[in-house]
Amino acid sequence: MSASGLPFDDFRELLRALPGPDGAALSAARARDQDLTKPPGALGRLEEIAFWLAAWTGRAPAVTRPLVAIFAGNHGVTKHGITPYPSSVTAQMVENFAAGGAAINQICVAYDLGLKIFDLALDYPTGDITQEAALSERDCAATMAFGMEALAGGTDLLCVGEMGIGNTTIAAAINLALYGGSAADWVGPGTGSTGELMARKVAAVEQAVALHRDHLADPLEVLRRLGGREVAAMAGAILAARMQKVPVIIDGYVATAAGAILQAVNPAALDHCLIGHVSAEPGHLAAIQKLGKTPLLALGMRLGEGTGAAMAAGVVKAAAACYSGMATFSQAGVSGAQA
Amino acid sequence: MSASGLPFDDFRELLRALPGPDGAALSAARARDQDLTKPPGALGRLEEIAFWLAAWTGRAPAVTRPLVAIFAGNHGVTKHGITPYPSSVTAQMVENFAAGGAAINQICVAYDLGLKIFDLALDYPTGDITQEAALSERDCAATMAFGMEALAGGTDLLCVGEMGIGNTTIAAAINLALYGGSAADWVGPGTGSTGELMARKVAAVEQAVALHRDHLADPLEVLRRLGGREVAAMAGAILAARMQKVPVIIDGYVATAAGAILQAVNPAALDHCLIGHVSAEPGHLAAIQKLGKTPLLALGMRLGEGTGAAMAAGVVKAAAACYSGMATFSQAGVSGAQA
Repeated sequence: MSASGLPFDDFRELLRALPGPDGAALSAARARDQDLTKPPGALGRLEEIAFWLAAWTGRAPAVTRPLVAIFAGNHGVTKHGITPYPSSVTAQMVENFAAGGAAINQICVAYDLGLKIFDLALDYPTGDITQEAALSERDCAATMAFGMEALAGGTDLLCVGEMGIGNTTIAAAINLALYGGSAADWVGPGTGSTGELMARKVAAVEQAVALHRDHLADPLEVLRRLGGREVAAMAGAILAARMQKVPVIIDGYVATAAGAILQAVNPAALDHCLIGHVSAEPGHLAAIQKLGKTPLLALGMRLGEGTGAAMAAGVVKAAAACYSGMATFSQAGVSGAQA
Repeated sequence: MSASGLPFDDFRELLRALPGPDGAALSAARARDQDLTKPPGALGRLEEIAFWLAAWTGRAPAVTRPLVAIFAGNHGVTKHGITPYPSSVTAQMVENFAAGGAAINQICVAYDLGLKIFDLALDYPTGDITQEAALSERDCAATMAFGMEALAGGTDLLCVGEMGIGNTTIAAAINLALYGGSAADWVGPGTGSTGELMARKVAAVEQAVALHRDHLADPLEVLRRLGGREVAAMAGAILAARMQKVPVIIDGYVATAAGAILQAVNPAALDHCLIGHVSAEPGHLAAIQKLGKTPLLALGMRLGEGTGAAMAAGVVKAAAACYSGMATFSQAGVSGAQA
């Protein structure tokens, strides 16, 4: 895919020169907000969200085609007995998404969000990161490019989520590689690993980062060596959204790790992204803080499949509705504050 | 309205013998939740909300007729120059609600919530609490009874909010009377009182609580002496909801003070209530903690008019949708956790 022949080069180039916020749209949104029938700032974060939508879409704040994109992948590292669910659950849950039976389906109906599922070679798990790289550079770049195509149908608010038995182990390894600390700082129960499973999870993360330690200065190498297909695809989707002026809501622990790869390459890479919620996965809050972000919601959720981002999309839709639907003081004949 | 002739007696009687949660409905909800296609507990607070709906409706968790009720009142204490907006804004905002131009209208459209506005004798502000009681016992009880009628059209989730220039001063006085501390602990900017306005607000709260100090051991006396019509009506609505098996979401600083009156009479009086959000009003978090509650959202909002409760209703609707719409493991053919 690259003229240079090195698969990551196109992504390095994109990440070097990311488009910035639209100052004119932001100023226009701030100006109208001052006239709306409420005390200045009284809608708090809802107003900040409206400004964020303006800045990153380049238009008046609105959400008309929100989309939840779920990327599903399988992981060789699961052979170490690190999760209570078998890898076959990834494909089973993809079928559950298609049939409308999962939590994310109900939230999408509740908030009128589109939903697309992208399953990524589920029969071919990535390499066991304790023994080898998860992906070749070619496969990793191709998967990022696939993720970029998630926006092809059009959307003006992208929620990025995932499904993949074993992928909180993957996310923990990425965080350890990017941020240091100990494996225990970044490993949590995920779908419910406790006791022996948790101990094996910590050991797998330690072993993986130790194996690849001489190659982790480059965030894209962290992605291909320690990541997974859904992580690479989410990174591609977040990047494509930036290029196409689509604001992004990042879901939980694994989606945040995908974002972290991009931000490690370019500190401004997630400026068009909200973190939808802080999950109950113990390392998530620290990972969010490493990104300099404040999560929108804290509901103790730890399910993945885009559910936290979709809950946040409900808030973002209401924020946009307030901005676009409210009357101004003069329209409503309401007195403003007295001097 | 009371056979005894003393207007508060009916409310004292109701508050003495409140109905409790429905244990059978709660058990049934917990049992089904264990079978849904997610790890146990992975929806966090959404699951707790589903259980709360079951316990207090006595049915399977569902939200089909959510209602936002806004009670509007005016306050004699505003003559002391404590807010930047004139009292005429209360009626102007009621017209704005009716015309669909306020923030709450947009949020109700976004989440498909019903909206009813109850304006309470706006041309007759309550007594200036620094000089006299806000209301007579007869007026206060009649206003509580009026608030109880807010549910007459039927609902299965009630969001309780208010509009009333000056009413964060009223709420601060109630909190000071119920919980002690200093006036400054409970007084915040409200719609935007700073500097001289804030100093006068603190002074008014101090003066009011000092004036009535010999009569504040009885929470219903706190309500009639220091409260306002919208506060009394909200207390009535919350109480009526309990009797009619309707769960309640309490909005911001002023609505929380209305709830606090009931809980001061009976510590179990708000067990059917969620606090929708913690507002930016500085005393709100402490007031919520006095109730032993954890707010659902923290979005830096400080608008009143039910907006925080309505945002929370969006979350509650999604929680109910997850509970009722999700497939079970056996329905979806998804493997459960391995032993």
